[in-house]
Amino acid sequence: MAVESARARTLQHVEPGDVPLQAALDALADPVRRSILRDLAVHEDWTRACGTFDLPVKKATASHHFAVLRSAGLIEQRDEGARRLNRLRRSEFDDAFPGLLAATIDRAD
Amino acid sequence: MAVESARARTLQHVEPGDVPLQAALDALADPVRRSILRDLAVHEDWTRACGTFDLPVKKATASHHFAVLRSAGLIEQRDEGARRLNRLRRSEFDDAFPGLLAATIDRAD
Repeated sequence: MAVESARARTLQHVEPGDVPLQAALDALADPVRRSILRDLAVHEDWTRACGTFDLPVKKATASHHFAVLRSAGLIEQRDEGARRLNRLRRSEFDDAFPGLLAATIDRAD
Repeated sequence: MAVESARARTLQHVEPGDVPLQAALDALADPVRRSILRDLAVHEDWTRACGTFDLPVKKATASHHFAVLRSAGLIEQRDEGARRLNRLRRSEFDDAFPGLLAATIDRAD
């Protein structure tokens, strides 16, 4: 339980409705982060682990990108054993920022 | 004529369809630039001169913001005497990036 609690603390989430527009735009204005979101958009929730994304950056940088996406209310994460699984918060984010995801990740860069 | 040509050269415009998504998002991910766009959105085309915007930045910085917006295909500018007039390229930008302006400037920050 203590271990789980410690882990849970490292995975703070922000509700999309509490995210300022500036933070949402900052999160989306990066090609690596958009590629993560596009990947999640075409896969079932909780089926993609952080380590399985093919990203052109080092692991620490990738972790930073996932953290930015989580802070912007764009993804939800949970740990399952050694894997950190991801889910795109499509409907919640769409409620908070109508049309923004469609305008940014439903098209090629 | 020579003076007009020199001026025209300083006002290069980019078609929204030629703007990369990254450049569009970078242009929109700034609160001062969004305030300029919101101002233009509620005024008639060519009625707002650069010097008349109430912006919390110095003149040189404001000029930079207008240039970024022009380079991203978001505004059109033309000189009329000493004034530089502006127009929001709403329909052209909407064609190139459907929903993006609505998601960013049709709402408060």
